[in-house]
Amino acid sequence: MKIAILPGDGIGPEITAQAVRVLNALGENFEMEQADVGGAGYAAHGHPLPPASLALAKGADAVLFGAVGDYKYDTLERALRPEQAILGLRRELGLFANLRPAILYPELAGASTLKPEVVSGLDILIIRELTGDIYFGKPRGVRECPDGPFKGEREGFDTMRYAESEIRRIAHVAFQAARKRGKRVTSVDKANVLETFQFWRDIVTEVHQDYADVELEHMYVDNAAMQLVRAPKKFDVIVTGNMFGDILSDCAAMLTGSIGMLPSASLDANNKGLYEPSHGSAPDIAGKGIANPLATILSAAMMLRYSLNMAAQADRIEAAVKQVLAQGLRTPDIYEAGTTKVGTAEMGDAVVNAL
Amino acid sequence: MKIAILPGDGIGPEITAQAVRVLNALGENFEMEQADVGGAGYAAHGHPLPPASLALAKGADAVLFGAVGDYKYDTLERALRPEQAILGLRRELGLFANLRPAILYPELAGASTLKPEVVSGLDILIIRELTGDIYFGKPRGVRECPDGPFKGEREGFDTMRYAESEIRRIAHVAFQAARKRGKRVTSVDKANVLETFQFWRDIVTEVHQDYADVELEHMYVDNAAMQLVRAPKKFDVIVTGNMFGDILSDCAAMLTGSIGMLPSASLDANNKGLYEPSHGSAPDIAGKGIANPLATILSAAMMLRYSLNMAAQADRIEAAVKQVLAQGLRTPDIYEAGTTKVGTAEMGDAVVNAL
Ligand SMILES: CC(C)[C@H](C(=O)O)[C@@H](O)C(=O)O
Ligand SMILES: CC(C)[C@H](C(=O)O)[C@@H](O)C(=O)O
Repeated sequence: MKIAILPGDGIGPEITAQAVRVLNALGENFEMEQADVGGAGYAAHGHPLPPASLALAKGADAVLFGAVGDYKYDTLERALRPEQAILGLRRELGLFANLRPAILYPELAGASTLKPEVVSGLDILIIRELTGDIYFGKPRGVRECPDGPFKGEREGFDTMRYAESEIRRIAHVAFQAARKRGKRVTSVDKANVLETFQFWRDIVTEVHQDYADVELEHMYVDNAAMQLVRAPKKFDVIVTGNMFGDILSDCAAMLTGSIGMLPSASLDANNKGLYEPSHGSAPDIAGKGIANPLATILSAAMMLRYSLNMAAQADRIEAAVKQVLAQGLRTPDIYEAGTTKVGTAEMGDAVVNAL
Repeated sequence: MKIAILPGDGIGPEITAQAVRVLNALGENFEMEQADVGGAGYAAHGHPLPPASLALAKGADAVLFGAVGDYKYDTLERALRPEQAILGLRRELGLFANLRPAILYPELAGASTLKPEVVSGLDILIIRELTGDIYFGKPRGVRECPDGPFKGEREGFDTMRYAESEIRRIAHVAFQAARKRGKRVTSVDKANVLETFQFWRDIVTEVHQDYADVELEHMYVDNAAMQLVRAPKKFDVIVTGNMFGDILSDCAAMLTGSIGMLPSASLDANNKGLYEPSHGSAPDIAGKGIANPLATILSAAMMLRYSLNMAAQADRIEAAVKQVLAQGLRTPDIYEAGTTKVGTAEMGDAVVNAL
């Protein structure tokens, strides 16, 4: 089993290092190889996704990704900025299905800005389409406005688009995931305004005919944002496009108050995948040894489950994480009075010991 | 002063009726005329925005709008559905600046799903561009996919676009509004992915040069959704495009837990405007006499302030609303133990009396 390790920038290297330790502690025969991406890729090789890093990711059975981005690269032209690494990997590897659980661990209920009764026990799975939509649609650019009241001015423009089979395949992922959970799918769109998402709604409705055992509800994206704040526990699986999914999955993650705990998986059609924490590169705390490695460690567990067919080992890691939480160990981001504050490496130690 | 009253569907007629009573109680010489829009427009005249209703709105100094939408119109083709009334009015009247305050009245702090310390005293103003973006951009439709891996399939598509002067004028609205408040503007975009919003960021930055006394910060939309949940009080004025504004303003409204209290204004270049509650038509409670009329009454106050140049009368209405809240009167949506539950008309009575 070959795993590409792409630590990236900011806290990426620290948290990835702990996940690698945990993988090693499983006693399996993983071949792990590391490469630079993001700002680190640009600094070392002049590009956020150097060809060798991409080739490594393509040749591996799975990719463990840290995080990219740092203030010092903010002034680079867009094509060279760190986030091009993750956009490029998604596109080049065909990682169309992004799975982002928003789970609130009972021990961390206090960390949420929401009232405990609203979020305790929260367990939603957001499935975001990741290779289509306005993220990649062409044409796009800045041009002379061709028509309408602003004709002749400069205008920025982008194209939102979804083809039928793109919608079908992500809908299948959602219905199949729902079958293994609460059997309810909420498809989020803006069918009342956008042609793309009226089409999305029609196709999702068609695909649903294969899944009579799963309940399907359609919801407008503005209402979904409200319901996430009002009564998030009513959701089971949410499926949506790339742009709406970007917004809603971050909103849902923040409901838990412990985004440092949330893993994610981005899968292709054959369950090969890239795994990364839901949080960012946090350059402000990089190198201080205080970042929470658990989202990355839990991402490694998702990798074992979805791409490497090692569900038992995934269970072991998840149980170990629950155990360290039960022991009261907390990195600063999830610390509260009465618990024990630990650093990145100590948290990694604790998970390794719990295994 | 001529005011067009467009009650619409669901609870629209009940809540608008109370706002009309409040306006009448001011003892001014308003000429108010009413017309059908939304499902009511379709039922009576075959179109959600009948020509006579549009003409009335165009000829008036301001428009007071209730809400549109009802389950029974859900199966109509898109061009005849109730929401076309509001989209058509925005476009035809050139109402490009949508002002949506998200304010948490101290008396209602308990209604929020967020912890009181996170939201008490919340006072954000969201300024949403309302006539551009992917809402109206062409081309759009369903077509045969012209290129890429899905060539030949059906695809839905839409065009996001913003011209320079569209961005300029909404940026001016935001900076000017901020001057009268906390002097801070957060411009929300997705400049790391979208050409439209990189252009947006560039133009907003340029316009900011005229407002050295106002602080400008740029934030990605996914992060904005997170920060609204994490620390909403850090915001003063948020300015963003039509699509992101749709999502974020509903999210911000729901943070207060009392969306039945939130008014909105949609203004053209000459401060003529359409005023409507931030909530919807709530067909499930229509006709029961339990809907909260305060958002509509407060929308009437915004109308006096922004379009009719009657700030003193606007103050009177807002003070009257504060007074009825202080008296403990609550419609069911904001009721909690220890307060007095009242219906729509009783709430209207109370505001009229307080005037
Ligand atoms: C970094 C950025 C391009 C990316 C996105 O918008 O997809 C990020 O926000 C995410 O959600 O992974
Ligand atoms: C009804 C709908 C078209 C409308 C919108 O998306 O603008 C509504 O959600 C709003 O925010 O006023």
